[in-house]
Amino acid sequence: MRLGFIGLGHMGSGMASNLVKAGHEVTVYNRTPDKTAPLVALGATAARQLADACRGDAVITMLADDAAVEGVVFGDGGILTRLASGAIHISCSTISVELSRRLAQAHAHASQRYIAAPVFGRPDVAAAAKLFVVAGGAPDAVESARPVLDAIGQRTFVMSAQPEAANLIKLSGNFLIATVIESLGEAMALAGKAGIDLQAYLDLLTSTLFTAPVYRTYGALIAERRFEPPGFAAPLGHKDIRLTLAAAEELRVPMPLASLLRDRFLTLLAHGGENLDWSAIGGLAAQDAGAAPR
Amino acid sequence: MRLGFIGLGHMGSGMASNLVKAGHEVTVYNRTPDKTAPLVALGATAARQLADACRGDAVITMLADDAAVEGVVFGDGGILTRLASGAIHISCSTISVELSRRLAQAHAHASQRYIAAPVFGRPDVAAAAKLFVVAGGAPDAVESARPVLDAIGQRTFVMSAQPEAANLIKLSGNFLIATVIESLGEAMALAGKAGIDLQAYLDLLTSTLFTAPVYRTYGALIAERRFEPPGFAAPLGHKDIRLTLAAAEELRVPMPLASLLRDRFLTLLAHGGENLDWSAIGGLAAQDAGAAPR
Amino acid sequence: MRLGFIGLGHMGSGMASNLVKAGHEVTVYNRTPDKTAPLVALGATAARQLADACRGDAVITMLADDAAVEGVVFGDGGILTRLASGAIHISCSTISVELSRRLAQAHAHASQRYIAAPVFGRPDVAAAAKLFVVAGGAPDAVESARPVLDAIGQRTFVMSAQPEAANLIKLSGNFLIATVIESLGEAMALAGKAGIDLQAYLDLLTSTLFTAPVYRTYGALIAERRFEPPGFAAPLGHKDIRLTLAAAEELRVPMPLASLLRDRFLTLLAHGGENLDWSAIGGLAAQDAGAAPR
Amino acid sequence: MRLGFIGLGHMGSGMASNLVKAGHEVTVYNRTPDKTAPLVALGATAARQLADACRGDAVITMLADDAAVEGVVFGDGGILTRLASGAIHISCSTISVELSRRLAQAHAHASQRYIAAPVFGRPDVAAAAKLFVVAGGAPDAVESARPVLDAIGQRTFVMSAQPEAANLIKLSGNFLIATVIESLGEAMALAGKAGIDLQAYLDLLTSTLFTAPVYRTYGALIAERRFEPPGFAAPLGHKDIRLTLAAAEELRVPMPLASLLRDRFLTLLAHGGENLDWSAIGGLAAQDAGAAPR
Repeated sequence: MRLGFIGLGHMGSGMASNLVKAGHEVTVYNRTPDKTAPLVALGATAARQLADACRGDAVITMLADDAAVEGVVFGDGGILTRLASGAIHISCSTISVELSRRLAQAHAHASQRYIAAPVFGRPDVAAAAKLFVVAGGAPDAVESARPVLDAIGQRTFVMSAQPEAANLIKLSGNFLIATVIESLGEAMALAGKAGIDLQAYLDLLTSTLFTAPVYRTYGALIAERRFEPPGFAAPLGHKDIRLTLAAAEELRVPMPLASLLRDRFLTLLAHGGENLDWSAIGGLAAQDAGAAPR
Repeated sequence: MRLGFIGLGHMGSGMASNLVKAGHEVTVYNRTPDKTAPLVALGATAARQLADACRGDAVITMLADDAAVEGVVFGDGGILTRLASGAIHISCSTISVELSRRLAQAHAHASQRYIAAPVFGRPDVAAAAKLFVVAGGAPDAVESARPVLDAIGQRTFVMSAQPEAANLIKLSGNFLIATVIESLGEAMALAGKAGIDLQAYLDLLTSTLFTAPVYRTYGALIAERRFEPPGFAAPLGHKDIRLTLAAAEELRVPMPLASLLRDRFLTLLAHGGENLDWSAIGGLAAQDAGAAPR
Repeated sequence: MRLGFIGLGHMGSGMASNLVKAGHEVTVYNRTPDKTAPLVALGATAARQLADACRGDAVITMLADDAAVEGVVFGDGGILTRLASGAIHISCSTISVELSRRLAQAHAHASQRYIAAPVFGRPDVAAAAKLFVVAGGAPDAVESARPVLDAIGQRTFVMSAQPEAANLIKLSGNFLIATVIESLGEAMALAGKAGIDLQAYLDLLTSTLFTAPVYRTYGALIAERRFEPPGFAAPLGHKDIRLTLAAAEELRVPMPLASLLRDRFLTLLAHGGENLDWSAIGGLAAQDAGAAPR
Repeated sequence: MRLGFIGLGHMGSGMASNLVKAGHEVTVYNRTPDKTAPLVALGATAARQLADACRGDAVITMLADDAAVEGVVFGDGGILTRLASGAIHISCSTISVELSRRLAQAHAHASQRYIAAPVFGRPDVAAAAKLFVVAGGAPDAVESARPVLDAIGQRTFVMSAQPEAANLIKLSGNFLIATVIESLGEAMALAGKAGIDLQAYLDLLTSTLFTAPVYRTYGALIAERRFEPPGFAAPLGHKDIRLTLAAAEELRVPMPLASLLRDRFLTLLAHGGENLDWSAIGGLAAQDAGAAPR
C-alpha cells in the first residue's frame, strides 16, 4: 500500500520500519525532521511537509497526545484537508475517547475513512513487530487496513464498529497495569516494613499466582526503587488515568481505584516526578509508611 | 513421621490424604467427627479426642480462623498442653500475624517448636498436592518439617526465621488477588457500559498483558456475574483484608487500596453476600454505575 | 451606574432586582425573554438582544456553567465585541478557574476590564441581598464595581488581584459543603444502623460542636432522606466538584476527599439522581450499608 | 453523693474538681498518686488503693483507652469486685462500643448498674464544667447519675437505653471533627498552592458558611501549621477513628471517609507524629501537593 506515517518517536520509528520492511511504500513525517533519516535509509521517503504524508491509501498517526493529533488532523495542510476521499486514517495513538469520536465524525464528513488502532507494547516490542493491536471502526475500513495492522503487530483484536471503543479499551488496559503497580507498591511497603526480603517476596509472587510479565517487570522496578530512566514516563501514565476517568465520567461509571491512581500521579508530579517511570507511583506507599525517602 | 492433623475441611482433607499417601503415620481430628471416615479408609487413625492428635513428632493445623486455632492450641487438652517437648506445631491456617506471634511465644515457653506454613491454592489444588507453601520459622524446625511440607505442596518457599512473616505474606497475597478482582470489576463496568462485549474484552486482556490464571479465573466470574457457589466465600475474603489491615496498622503502613477493598466487602456483606464468592466484590462497580442490579 | 444584567435564573432574578432597587439603570437579558417581565415591572429595561445589555458601565453575568458564559462572551454580538473600552464585565457565575483566566486575558486584549465575583447563598438569600461576595481582580476594577457588589450582597471579600482566585475559592467552598454532606451521610448511616434516633442525634450534633447552619440544613435533609425538590441540583454539585478537581489537577494538588465526592456524584447520577438535591449523595452511605433502598 | 473518681488526667482532674465543688463526697484515685494533691486541697479524699474509690454510690472512670478501663474494672481489687450491689459505674472514657457492651454485661451479672457518659470538650471546657455529656443506659441508672452529670457538664443528652450507643455517638462525633480537619487540609492545600492568603481564606470561610468553632480552631492550626503542643494527641485521634471503623465493621457500614482518615493517621504516625496534635493530619494534603515539608 501507499502509506503516510506521522510521528517517529520511540514507538513510531519501529512501527514505520516494519511497514517499510513489509514492502509498503511509506512516506514518513516528523515534526523534527532529523528522525526521518534512519527510515529513509531503509527505503522510506521523507515528507517535506505534512501534506506529503497524506497522499496515499492510508495515513497512520502515532503521536503523544490529543493536542498533537488534533494539530496534524485539523491544522492547515493537515490530514483532514489532504487525505483522498475513501482513504483511511489509522490512528494508533493513545488518545481520548472524545477526540476519537470527533475524528470519526470529521473524517466521515470529509468522505474519508477512519479507524482507531491503539497498540499495547513498549518500544522494543514495537521494533520487533510484536505489538498487540486493538482495532475499532467500520468493518470495511478495518479490512482495508489489515495489511498495515498485520505488519506492525503480532495479533489484531477487532473489538467494535465504533472506533472510540478501541481507545477506551487501550485506556482501560493502562488503568489495569497501573493498579498492578499500586497493589505491588502497597504489598511491598507492608512486606518491606515487616523485614521480609523483597526480591524473595517478588520471586514467590511471580512463580506462583502472578506469573504475568507485568508483575515481574514492575515488581522488580518497585523492589529496587529503580524509577529512572523512564520506560513510560509518569506524565503519560497520568494522562492515561485522566482520560480513563474522563471516559468513565461521561458514562457515569464511578471508578474509585482510578481515582486513587490519579491522586498518586498528582503526588508524584508534585514532587518532581516528571522524568520518572510511571511505576514510581508504586514507590509512594513505602514513602507514606516512612520506609523510603521522598 | 508420626503426625497429627487437625481440621478436615475442604483444604485439610486433601492435605491430610496426601500425608497418608506419602507414608506418614497420621492421626486425624475434626470437631465434627464424620469427616474422618474417608481418611481412615486411606489408612489414617481417627483421634477420639483432640489430645490423641498431639502425640506425634508434629501436629498440623488447618482451620478457618484465629478463634478456631486458639481453641485447639490454648484450650483444655489442647496442643500446648499435650505436644511433646521438641515436637513441632505446623500451622497452615490463614491467621493473623498477631496470633502467629503469640503462638510462637507460647510454644517456645512450652519447649515446643512452631512454624507457620500457610498455603496458596484452592481445594482441588490441595487434593492434587500442588499447593505452594510459604514457610516461616527457625531453620531447624523448618528442616524437620520438610517431609510434611513436601508431601502437601509442589514447592515450599522458606521466607523468614520469623513464623509470622509467612502469615503476613499469605495475607498480602490474598490482598493482591482481591485488587485484581476490584480492578477487573471497575474496568468491566466501564467497558460494559461503553457497549463492549465483555467476553471478547476479557479474551483480549488474558491473551496479551494479563496472562496469569488469576485474571482468567476471576475475569470470567465477573464477566458472567457468576458469584455462586462460593469457591472462597466472601466472609473469608473480608477476614483476610481485615487481617492485612491489622498487620499494616501495627506496622504503620497506610494501604489505601486495602481500605477500599475492606469497604467493598462491607458493602457486599451488608447486602446478603455471606454466601457469595469473594469475587462478588468485583460486581459492585457495575452496580454503582447503574449497569447491574444490586 | 448604567448596567447590563445577563442571566435571570433563580439567583440572577433576585440579584438584578436588588440592583434596580438600589437605583441603578439596569438593562436585563435572558435567553428566554419571559423572565424579564418582573424586572421591567420594577423599572428595568428589557434588552431585545444580547448586545443591548452590553452598552453600560458594567455588565453582570450570572449563568449556569462555562458553556453559557462562553456563549454570551465570545459569541456573535456578545460581550467581548460590544462592551465599551474600560467598561467592566462582572462575572458572578460559578465557573472554572481556567475559563476565568481566559476571560481575563480576552477582556484585557479588548481593553475592557474584568472581575470575578462569585457568590455564596441560595436564591432566597440572593433575593434578600444577603449574599456573600468573593471578589478577585485588579483593585481599580473591583473598586469601580463596588456599588454593584454592595447592592447584591451583605459583605464582599476582596481576595486577590487575580480574578480566577475568586472562582477557585467559590469552588473550594462548595467542596467543603459537600464534605459536610458526605460526613453526615456516613455518620448517620452508622448511627442509624446502631438504632439511634437520627433526629435526636442531629439535634445533639448541631447544639454542641456543629452549630453552623450548613450542618442543620443538610443534616435534616439526610436524616429524613428528603432529597426532592432540589434546592441545588445534583448535576450542579457534580460540576463544582469536577471543576475543583480540574483546578487541583492543574496545580498538582491531590485531593482524595474530592475524589471520593466525585465518585459519589457519579453513583448518584448513574441511578437517576439528575433531579435530586445534591445532598442526596449523603444518602448513599446508608444504601451501601443496606439500611436504605437505592 | 458518695463518689469515687478514677483517672486524674487533663480531663479527669477538672471533672473531679467540679464534683467536689458541687458538694459531693469524692474519693479520688490515680495510678500515679501525685495527681491527687490538688483535689485533696479542694476537699477530696485520696484513695490509697483502687478499692477505696469503689465504696460509694457511684464510681466515675475517665481513662485513656480500653486497656486502662479494663484494668480498673476487671483487675484484682477492681470495680467489678468492690462496687456495692446497686451502685453505678459511670464510664466517661472514650472507649470501644464492644468494651462498653461487655462492661454492661459484667456489671449486670454482678448486680451493679452501669451507664456510659462520654463527654465532648477539651480540658479547659472540663475545668469550667461546660462539657456536653452523652448518656446511655437504663433510665433509672441515668436518673440516679444525674447529679454527677449535671456537675460536670453544661448539658446532658440522654440518647439510648443501651450504654454502648453513647460510646458510638462520641466516636462518630470525633469522626466528624476529623473530617473537618481533612477537608480544611485539602482546601487549604489547594488555596495555598494557588497563592491565596490562608488567613484571609479562613476568615472568609468562618465568617460565612462555616461559623462553628471547630472550623475556626482547626482552620487556624492548619493555616499556621501549628501542630505542637498537642491539645488532643494524634495517637488518640487515630484510636478514635480505629474504634469508629471497628463499630462500623461490626454493623456492616462502609465508611470510605473514615477509611481515608485512618490512612492519614497511619501516615502521620509513620513519620514521627506521636507527639503532634491530631489536626496534623490536616497538614498532609499540603505535603502531598509538594507545598509543605514532610
